[in-house]
Amino acid sequence: MSFRHADILSAAQFSRAQIEQWFARADDLAARLARGERLRTLDGKMLATVFYEPSIRTRLAFEAAMQRLGGGVLSLADAKTATAISGEPLPDVIRAVAHLADVIVLRHPDAGAACVAANASAAPIINAGDGTGEHPTQALLDLYTLRAERQTLDGLHVALVGDLKHSPAVHSFARTLSEFQVEFSFVTPAALAMPTAITDDLRERGFSVEETNDLARSLQTADVVYMTRVCKERFSDLKQYEKLKDFYLLTRALIEKAKPGLSVLHPLPRANEIAAEVDALPNAAYFRQVKNGVVIRMTLLADILAD
Amino acid sequence: MSFRHADILSAAQFSRAQIEQWFARADDLAARLARGERLRTLDGKMLATVFYEPSIRTRLAFEAAMQRLGGGVLSLADAKTATAISGEPLPDVIRAVAHLADVIVLRHPDAGAACVAANASAAPIINAGDGTGEHPTQALLDLYTLRAERQTLDGLHVALVGDLKHSPAVHSFARTLSEFQVEFSFVTPAALAMPTAITDDLRERGFSVEETNDLARSLQTADVVYMTRVCKERFSDLKQYEKLKDFYLLTRALIEKAKPGLSVLHPLPRANEIAAEVDALPNAAYFRQVKNGVVIRMTLLADILAD
Amino acid sequence: MSFRHADILSAAQFSRAQIEQWFARADDLAARLARGERLRTLDGKMLATVFYEPSIRTRLAFEAAMQRLGGGVLSLADAKTATAISGEPLPDVIRAVAHLADVIVLRHPDAGAACVAANASAAPIINAGDGTGEHPTQALLDLYTLRAERQTLDGLHVALVGDLKHSPAVHSFARTLSEFQVEFSFVTPAALAMPTAITDDLRERGFSVEETNDLARSLQTADVVYMTRVCKERFSDLKQYEKLKDFYLLTRALIEKAKPGLSVLHPLPRANEIAAEVDALPNAAYFRQVKNGVVIRMTLLADILAD
Repeated sequence: MSFRHADILSAAQFSRAQIEQWFARADDLAARLARGERLRTLDGKMLATVFYEPSIRTRLAFEAAMQRLGGGVLSLADAKTATAISGEPLPDVIRAVAHLADVIVLRHPDAGAACVAANASAAPIINAGDGTGEHPTQALLDLYTLRAERQTLDGLHVALVGDLKHSPAVHSFARTLSEFQVEFSFVTPAALAMPTAITDDLRERGFSVEETNDLARSLQTADVVYMTRVCKERFSDLKQYEKLKDFYLLTRALIEKAKPGLSVLHPLPRANEIAAEVDALPNAAYFRQVKNGVVIRMTLLADILAD
Repeated sequence: MSFRHADILSAAQFSRAQIEQWFARADDLAARLARGERLRTLDGKMLATVFYEPSIRTRLAFEAAMQRLGGGVLSLADAKTATAISGEPLPDVIRAVAHLADVIVLRHPDAGAACVAANASAAPIINAGDGTGEHPTQALLDLYTLRAERQTLDGLHVALVGDLKHSPAVHSFARTLSEFQVEFSFVTPAALAMPTAITDDLRERGFSVEETNDLARSLQTADVVYMTRVCKERFSDLKQYEKLKDFYLLTRALIEKAKPGLSVLHPLPRANEIAAEVDALPNAAYFRQVKNGVVIRMTLLADILAD
Repeated sequence: MSFRHADILSAAQFSRAQIEQWFARADDLAARLARGERLRTLDGKMLATVFYEPSIRTRLAFEAAMQRLGGGVLSLADAKTATAISGEPLPDVIRAVAHLADVIVLRHPDAGAACVAANASAAPIINAGDGTGEHPTQALLDLYTLRAERQTLDGLHVALVGDLKHSPAVHSFARTLSEFQVEFSFVTPAALAMPTAITDDLRERGFSVEETNDLARSLQTADVVYMTRVCKERFSDLKQYEKLKDFYLLTRALIEKAKPGLSVLHPLPRANEIAAEVDALPNAAYFRQVKNGVVIRMTLLADILAD
């Protein structure tokens, strides 16, 4: 499919061929930026960020990507407060912003909010995290980073660790990985397990999916570990959160006992699940993910807003 | 009068000739944007938005307008919080920002705040809503939309409905309409009546002004209905607000019984006064208003900041 | 030293020669702006503002400076709220933003935070106020303003007044002034005295430093008075703040009795320490400081981001 003027709502929209085409373009953009080339592909276009929950990396990476392509930015960093008094519903906000901008990046606490927005909008919607739903552009940058770290996306054993119940990034990442030949380990306490819809789908399509709560053991065979923060904001019972928040901690000692060459990813922000001592190891790819986030968003915006 | 380097504080500054000149320029700008032309009229100029109360449409429309003319933007989306600790007074904030930007767009909860700001400022001030005062650029985009919907601004019967006491948009809109040959119906519960200063002024100048609380009846003769939200933030007594907030609801059924071809406007955001079922009717012009808001602000900014 | 790709953390980094070179460049930039020249020196570069406490002037002056040089801006005006739920530590935020922007301007409530950030960052950090620490770029614009007001920076008697304990601007200003031949009066109630580290350092280096609580008397000999706000946000005991907040008030009467030609500076925002009646006097330079803030930040950004 073409993504010209299309919404990006779910990683289920991404085929292997599409992903590979985007990554080739992202490589090209990265090379041009590295040469100091000034791009003006989206000169005269406008991107709006509409964020009902804060996000530093995602909002700023989209705003940086748009500006690095010569486009303009409208920033609504706190849509929750801006709509608090009037109680203006999401579709009204989106319908209005769609008349001000050429593309809208939406972050919202409710799963499905990006679909609601897309139905209301005359402009393409990019889902930048809809509660426990999906975060498809995060998955693309995760995958792009993984390709840079491993040179291939096939034949990898990937352990997804932590709050697989709530993290929209991990839902999208699992879907995207399933376009490649991978094995999965889902490493969680029982209360934070991956939604069965995703696990069942992967198994039906023939993937090996291990479910375990034993991080150390899963690291014996994993090539990649994708850590996640326990999403405090999704717990109605904070006592439950307190019990679960420190369930896993990836340390230098654990990495030393793991399969050699382990790649460590994290969508960030982290809370307590990766020790600071890990940051200096070559395994730690999570700050490289941030950098890749700009070039991936540049690729998507150029595609969606192509004339 | 010329608006070069001038403040825009009240719709009382707008003559019919001025309005018609602006609308002709707005038509021209809209045509150039539609052709994909990239404008750079305000390259090197800077606009600051200083908002003591949130506004999605007004702030972003000004920021979009400035960028679509090639200018830069400084965004102070939450001036209330930014001044909370120091208690810095409005004139100090404005005097400072006037040294950073070439024009300032101000939203403030107090009627008269835009005048206070203009007295302090070396840069032109655009009043983007001063409490229950005025919102003159909203009135211009309302009028511009009405002209597009009706092809003329003379001979219309306009019903203004809802919170005519507090809505600054409706105060400015009534003043602006009075440059044309129109009849007014002010449709409100008694507690939300249009300020007598406005009503008296219109009557003294020979306008027919009906005051009623009967929406259905006023729609028998109105060509245009301008709905407004009951302004919760202006009530010290929330019980009073609760009693009044659902006084009117414009439904599809009401429109079917109204004079054919009724145009429905609303400055947005709406709370409960227009049913969602109305959105799909050709009568609903309120999202077209948002789009027109950009080109009208482009026209004004180009005029104010002309060399 | 060269400031290419360097952090700006403390005014202690600024030599007299460096300051004079910057001021010559600032003069040149100001002249080019005044001629309406459009500068594009930083086209394709990106500045991020990361503010854990609000600041109107500092944030907007940096954002204006970057845009006036053709660069782009990423604005994180409320980093405190954005990190509240995850508890993301400062180094993680900075490490991430350093992959999105070419330079980071940081405001933070903790003294030393700018150093922590610089240690974590791949991009240069500009300290825009770290609690009671320093605010070096404010000191530069203060000094640049003083030079414009007095034609020289040598031979001046400078009275620093108010909350010399907490104000980071005044800590940086005193250090910067000490590159020139000046005499100091520190005018404070005992509870708000200048940190002894600064006072001792100045005295060891041979400067005359008077400590007094008598504003009227110090104005008999001062050429320059630098007023400061009592920093409410640094008091754990608000009763203590209430006792101290109105300790000094600079009035027209005080200025009339002072040494003729007194220059009045203030980093702003002010609370109650300068009467509004002073604003119209030629002595009042504090709004001219704001204007100078843009050209000084342009000078620094151009230097730091030079290819």
